Amino acid sequence: MYGMSMGTRIRRSPYFEATKAAGVTSFTTYNQMLMPTSYGDPQAEYRRLTQGVAMWDVAVERQIALTGPDALRLAQAICVRDMGKVVPGQGKYVAMCDHRGVLINDPVLLLHEDGEVWLSIADSDVVLWARAVAAERYFDVEVREARIAPLAIQGPKAMEVAEALLGAWVRELKHFAFRPARVDGIEVIVARSGWSKQGGVELYLADPDRGTDLWNRVAEAGAPFEIGPGAPNPSERIESGLLSYGADTDDATTPHEVRMGKFLDLEVEADVIGLAALQREAREGARRHQIGVVFASGGPEHHDRWLRLFNDAGKVGHVTSSAPSPKMGCAIGLALVRRDVEPGTELHVELEDGRRVPVATRELPFF
Amino acid sequence: MYGMSMGTRIRRSPYFEATKAAGVTSFTTYNQMLMPTSYGDPQAEYRRLTQGVAMWDVAVERQIALTGPDALRLAQAICVRDMGKVVPGQGKYVAMCDHRGVLINDPVLLLHEDGEVWLSIADSDVVLWARAVAAERYFDVEVREARIAPLAIQGPKAMEVAEALLGAWVRELKHFAFRPARVDGIEVIVARSGWSKQGGVELYLADPDRGTDLWNRVAEAGAPFEIGPGAPNPSERIESGLLSYGADTDDATTPHEVRMGKFLDLEVEADVIGLAALQREAREGARRHQIGVVFASGGPEHHDRWLRLFNDAGKVGHVTSSAPSPKMGCAIGLALVRRDVEPGTELHVELEDGRRVPVATRELPFF
Repeated sequence: MYGMSMGTRIRRSPYFEATKAAGVTSFTTYNQMLMPTSYGDPQAEYRRLTQGVAMWDVAVERQIALTGPDALRLAQAICVRDMGKVVPGQGKYVAMCDHRGVLINDPVLLLHEDGEVWLSIADSDVVLWARAVAAERYFDVEVREARIAPLAIQGPKAMEVAEALLGAWVRELKHFAFRPARVDGIEVIVARSGWSKQGGVELYLADPDRGTDLWNRVAEAGAPFEIGPGAPNPSERIESGLLSYGADTDDATTPHEVRMGKFLDLEVEADVIGLAALQREAREGARRHQIGVVFASGGPEHHDRWLRLFNDAGKVGHVTSSAPSPKMGCAIGLALVRRDVEPGTELHVELEDGRRVPVATRELPFF
Repeated sequence: MYGMSMGTRIRRSPYFEATKAAGVTSFTTYNQMLMPTSYGDPQAEYRRLTQGVAMWDVAVERQIALTGPDALRLAQAICVRDMGKVVPGQGKYVAMCDHRGVLINDPVLLLHEDGEVWLSIADSDVVLWARAVAAERYFDVEVREARIAPLAIQGPKAMEVAEALLGAWVRELKHFAFRPARVDGIEVIVARSGWSKQGGVELYLADPDRGTDLWNRVAEAGAPFEIGPGAPNPSERIESGLLSYGADTDDATTPHEVRMGKFLDLEVEADVIGLAALQREAREGARRHQIGVVFASGGPEHHDRWLRLFNDAGKVGHVTSSAPSPKMGCAIGLALVRRDVEPGTELHVELEDGRRVPVATRELPFF
């Protein structure tokens, strides 16, 4: 594995020291910030996430805060969701699109009681986009990246840890619901969310100086459940069919192409960027769609760029991400293919070394 | 050093295989792409750059292409430069600002003969910003990230290598001038530029499949001059006072604060984003300014977040980057401090471990 250079351009998480103490071995960057990716034992990390409970430094999930009289108006312009239906305390997974209807981020939107909106973003500079739109439309709104650092507790035993940490009320939170709380005097927002399908919560820390304290408090509450450090897990997220913006999307990917159609409110009567293009696409059908691919044993452990997919007639699309699947006992991947390529078809993928190997295809999610 | 996880979200450079063969040991990410940072011998890399010649994979310097009837109109809206004075074939270093006059990127702008504009960008999603402004203003322009990959040849012997590779004409190119050329049939644009003060050129490769070919061709032409691989060099760039956007800037930094005043055309009669705020700042003076700091021996080799700076009365700013300076024989850094703090003052810096150590300050650049 190559080394990662650090410096002041790539920011540190408030949990950086805690993850170091926990034995972090590798990082990636996301939103110009370091994110731990492993603590040296990928098998144990997958097992904890899928059978026990794991804690993740996901401070890179930056919160873009919209504040002021036009906060909701701006949110309505940049999110393809009916803001009239958004309720304070209940988060929503939203598509942000450009004027062509192309996906530019897929955040969770949080509306606070005081009218402030947070976009809990994937890896692109939403703050630039939101500021440009706000200023060009003369909206009375401030757009800033808030100093909020999420820590995720994920896995089948995550809610037991959350209850030990926060109290029984936390079990009542619905999916994507959130509310403020305190952990030993540390202010957090607790959200029933996280980038896995194993369940759990995210703690949105407000005071960056309390990162180590919060990390340690979670580790203590989780000790009886054998909690351990981890990170968003490529195997689990592909098994679960979760989208990774920027990995599984390109500069032409629309929400319809990546199974986000059900998260679009196309009937909203408002000036929403990309809406007209998306309505047209809903009528005419998307150019591509996302399916799963299953490699025969000996498939790639990993690949670092899109792999071309072929049927007998020629190129039909790309494998956009892949990972070994412990549940399947082989490598699996997500693919973006021409709309006429049905799951169930056998295709061929061109590996990084040029070899072509057969893959089975199937509907997503795998599980 | 920690490991770097790879994957399809972080893109590879067309020179990736060539840099692997050349022995790359570490990377950073920049514009969601991998950039080599070292080949394992920092001293040799610094020496090559400052006394000989080095070749760098700087494909991360992405080119945002503006095409169509309103390309120049868009460039005028988003760059604080008089587009009436821009000449095809002659690049310009420009400040891009938001509506508050805050720096959001500091690209080199290239105007091509056919009217296409390229912004050779630093590390932020300029494509989102430019697309938002273009669409909100109904400009007839296409904004895209072009598949262009710069390879830099830098150092006091760089022009000898460039001449061997391209011919004697290359010596006539003025600073930031550029023109199309071919290297053994490989189409490139040759620009007299690069992120060092050691001189040289950048070759903008158009065909990503020719990365290894171009790399090898440069290595061969450079062999008599003992060319070797390298990367943008923290020590050299701080000695030379070059700005690193995102490292030396925050969400309130204006061009005036970081010595970019001379690159602003504040008299331009056009609708330029941020112009009014910058004109006001030019009249009233910037809140902060950038100076150099010199550590006593034993200063930090490196730091990963801004370090707080104090005078006897209290906090006056931050050290934003630092590195060991072979020329000075100690660590040096760039600092952003209150405007009333003059170079020459002794200050104290709070290191990452909490210790406060004295630093001398001076005007930039160091050399």
